[in-house]
Amino acid sequence: MRLHHIGVVVKDIERSRKIYEKILGLRLLRRGPEDPFQKVKALFLGVGWGEGIVLELLEPTDETSPILSFLKRGGGIHHLCFEVEDIDRTLEEIKGRGGRVVCEPLPAVGFDNRRIAFIFPVDSILVELLERK
Amino acid sequence: MRLHHIGVVVKDIERSRKIYEKILGLRLLRRGPEDPFQKVKALFLGVGWGEGIVLELLEPTDETSPILSFLKRGGGIHHLCFEVEDIDRTLEEIKGRGGRVVCEPLPAVGFDNRRIAFIFPVDSILVELLERK
Repeated sequence: MRLHHIGVVVKDIERSRKIYEKILGLRLLRRGPEDPFQKVKALFLGVGWGEGIVLELLEPTDETSPILSFLKRGGGIHHLCFEVEDIDRTLEEIKGRGGRVVCEPLPAVGFDNRRIAFIFPVDSILVELLERK
Repeated sequence: MRLHHIGVVVKDIERSRKIYEKILGLRLLRRGPEDPFQKVKALFLGVGWGEGIVLELLEPTDETSPILSFLKRGGGIHHLCFEVEDIDRTLEEIKGRGGRVVCEPLPAVGFDNRRIAFIFPVDSILVELLERK
């Protein structure tokens, strides 16, 4: 398991991208396709160098987006995403240790069309799991 | 510049540590000394493996702690810390690009007694800089 990205909810991903690029020197890695399930658009910024940690900027595209209420409370860092080798096995382990899964993994909805799942906040942190390619 | 740690404000660092250890399998790296300036105690958890990203759990120790108001609003992820080679040079660069420094580097107050500085939130994220050893 390794930290893969930090999800940040913002009002306007392009406006925020320019700020992160300018002030901190982050670099645009890619723009994600709009996600019709989560009703978000996303882009990915490289944070520093040498280890591939990514900042994922997320913008709600619809009044029904599940991240809209978070944005209305101010937005900001929304979740931490950990990359795992085998998402089914990791979910079983986490459930066995008392973690609760928000939704079972769905195909082709996460970063890079890989399988993802969310764990109900661990202490205060919403955790996403992303299966390695 | 590389992501060094994610600062998380919690009510009780030992209680939260146990949750992160149990559910996510994070490991305790060290407990920090109590910080008389920031009025916090801290501990550091290893996140995943192989790249040394750290979760810094922070607990206010006093009613005058600058992180208390953040805790009262719910706590959670508070800042991102980037490790830099030369903190003075990086601060000059960031100021030249429009960033604003909360406090200039202070000796021996950050992680591992290294020099730190804070940058006013970049978009929505409070940024700490930590000088490499």
